[in-house]
Amino acid sequence: MEAFEILLPLAFILLLSKLMGLGAHKIGMPAVIGMLVAGVLIGCLGYIPWQPLKDAFFGADVKKGIDIISKIGVVLIMFSTGLGTDLKKLKQTGGAAVVITLFGVIVPMGFGTLVAFLFANAGLIPNQGVLSWLFYGAILTATSVSVTVAVLKELGKLDTKLGTSVVAAAVIDDVIGIIVLSVLTGFSSGGDGAGWNWFNPNAALVTIKIVVFFVVAIALGVALRKIFDIMERKAPHNRRVPIISLAACFLYAYAAEKFFGVADITGAYVAGILLGGTLSETPYVENKVDTMGYLFFSPVFFASIGMNLDFSGITPSFLAFGAVYVIAALAGKFLGCGLGAKLCKFSWMDSVRTGLGMMVRAEVILICAERGVSAGLVSGAIYPFVFLIILISSVLTPIFLKLSYRKELRRIPRSNLPSNWGETEQ
Amino acid sequence: MEAFEILLPLAFILLLSKLMGLGAHKIGMPAVIGMLVAGVLIGCLGYIPWQPLKDAFFGADVKKGIDIISKIGVVLIMFSTGLGTDLKKLKQTGGAAVVITLFGVIVPMGFGTLVAFLFANAGLIPNQGVLSWLFYGAILTATSVSVTVAVLKELGKLDTKLGTSVVAAAVIDDVIGIIVLSVLTGFSSGGDGAGWNWFNPNAALVTIKIVVFFVVAIALGVALRKIFDIMERKAPHNRRVPIISLAACFLYAYAAEKFFGVADITGAYVAGILLGGTLSETPYVENKVDTMGYLFFSPVFFASIGMNLDFSGITPSFLAFGAVYVIAALAGKFLGCGLGAKLCKFSWMDSVRTGLGMMVRAEVILICAERGVSAGLVSGAIYPFVFLIILISSVLTPIFLKLSYRKELRRIPRSNLPSNWGETEQ
Repeated sequence: MEAFEILLPLAFILLLSKLMGLGAHKIGMPAVIGMLVAGVLIGCLGYIPWQPLKDAFFGADVKKGIDIISKIGVVLIMFSTGLGTDLKKLKQTGGAAVVITLFGVIVPMGFGTLVAFLFANAGLIPNQGVLSWLFYGAILTATSVSVTVAVLKELGKLDTKLGTSVVAAAVIDDVIGIIVLSVLTGFSSGGDGAGWNWFNPNAALVTIKIVVFFVVAIALGVALRKIFDIMERKAPHNRRVPIISLAACFLYAYAAEKFFGVADITGAYVAGILLGGTLSETPYVENKVDTMGYLFFSPVFFASIGMNLDFSGITPSFLAFGAVYVIAALAGKFLGCGLGAKLCKFSWMDSVRTGLGMMVRAEVILICAERGVSAGLVSGAIYPFVFLIILISSVLTPIFLKLSYRKELRRIPRSNLPSNWGETEQ
Repeated sequence: MEAFEILLPLAFILLLSKLMGLGAHKIGMPAVIGMLVAGVLIGCLGYIPWQPLKDAFFGADVKKGIDIISKIGVVLIMFSTGLGTDLKKLKQTGGAAVVITLFGVIVPMGFGTLVAFLFANAGLIPNQGVLSWLFYGAILTATSVSVTVAVLKELGKLDTKLGTSVVAAAVIDDVIGIIVLSVLTGFSSGGDGAGWNWFNPNAALVTIKIVVFFVVAIALGVALRKIFDIMERKAPHNRRVPIISLAACFLYAYAAEKFFGVADITGAYVAGILLGGTLSETPYVENKVDTMGYLFFSPVFFASIGMNLDFSGITPSFLAFGAVYVIAALAGKFLGCGLGAKLCKFSWMDSVRTGLGMMVRAEVILICAERGVSAGLVSGAIYPFVFLIILISSVLTPIFLKLSYRKELRRIPRSNLPSNWGETEQ
């Protein structure tokens, strides 16, 4: 392939993703659904028996190019998520968020692991041992509250105790999720998954590597923050800050995967947290990174997942597993977070709302699933069910959240509801 | 290669390019020189006899990934150049700019072609026929006045007759240059270069294809402008506008190269012109495209040229050719543009200044040279000399321009000279 030939599939991905994203937005769904559908549609082109078309969209070199761009895309998404994670803010919201997250991580992870364990041991899905079961569980810990935030904002309820708790819980959720993922990835690369035990010398080495990674990452991050602090005092909004940040993100991601057996997305996320928060240049860097993301890299990542969708692995027994897995995903988050909220003395109604709000998944669950599949611990046939989790949760949550506020909303004058929220982003 | 492994060379390219770019800026040279040097330095890593290092930076898959990112980079640069080209503004500056450009294109192109013709026929460089000689000439038509603009701005002379003429001439220069390049690329892909003649049926086909390309491109561009006009009246600054623009740029570049035998960079440039100018969303799109460019794609493009620098093709006779070629590049522009200015009744001093101002080359000459090399019409050994042209012109022009204004500047109070112009861009 000559390099220019990548431009055709890229142009199609961008156009179709935007079109489908707008369509998804019109019917009240997150744009990520539209981008995935765009990928599926492009994937369908592969069934047209015309060789030039196949070469143009699915040639080995084209695939490699899209893989590389997707990888940069996923690293940028996690970096941006990290940049938006303000750990200091968590202190303000108090203990509620921590309790909600804890139950919101343990219950769905438990549900997912249990479902995978039962189906694997019944011989209905391939049995790959404890690491694999745990990974199926870990995927379900992800939360993406952007839909919930949009709904609460629209209802004027974002600044309530419920709203701030949900946002804070989602942050802690990401942190815990990424640690779980790192540990699982570490152990999966550190030796035989099925024979995993803590007294295995390999396991000890993996644990040491993970600890060393976090120590080194934090030490370097603190040093980099000091440098940025000096740089921004000299002259704010310099191009050098986002460029160096980006390079740091790439280095963290690379080193995490290459030397520490931790996932590259963990490296990018940690880089984001370390360069985010209180640094005054953070919003500037985040803005630049997000521009690159939404304009080019993210659509390519989501579409590539859609393009690679393969239904051939879905046997009747896997279909049964998938259905139960989807229910575990939704019920696990809803029950876990609702229980956590109730324990923190939320009203019954607010507990239900918390469960609903935390139930929504979007990009992070996809990234975690992709990680499990590429580590060989999770079947590629899981993707359609992950889609379903995103689809169902992002359809149900807005509907039920709005219903739950119907009584209260009657008291608010209509003009207080900004109907065009987020519109310019489309 | 696994996709994440591209992150290491990318991080190095970004860091080193920024560092070298800052260094170049400190000593008064354009950042592009720094980025090229960064590439050369990374290229030197290839001489360290340590296989993991070689694989990490120069493995076949890594190279392919960087090639693809570079290609996107060069397309974005040309798209952005096109977006910044306001054809309507040219009317205001009158005929002077046209005359300056005409001589500024013909003289250096003539010089370059003549030098290539003489050296080829003397057997000092490989003789590849008339298309090859013309391509050596066409490379020299490129102008990049950003250094000149910066100097004139610093001196407070940008809004003079001289300043506006130089800026306008540079715009026409790009347009003519791109047409020359398209024609040469078309003919080089349309058949045997050495046997080129207008009555050859192949040549007729090539000519038709080039004409059809411009007709189709302009027709589609006008339609797209209408759509954008409607979209921006509904809601300005929507993300959809830069995304669709980007997709259009990619499609134009792809179609130009694939179906019309015109260079992909021509397609991107034409897309930029068609979506630029009077469209009210243009600055918004340009800003987004430039962010992607300076933050990621441009450094990778420039560094990759530096990385691929190969001195093995530089024989003593090629060295002689290169030296004369550099002189032809500088003298051709200086004499051509100076003559044009004098014919337009500029003073002798202003004619000299015009020649100096138009002499500077930067990214476009590199892109043209890269194009000639990849078409097989220009030797890869030309790169070091193209570097020299950029280096010498961007060192000499600021010095002599400032000297030429020394007398007048004594009359201006010191405080009128903004010394920190453009600083936040670094």
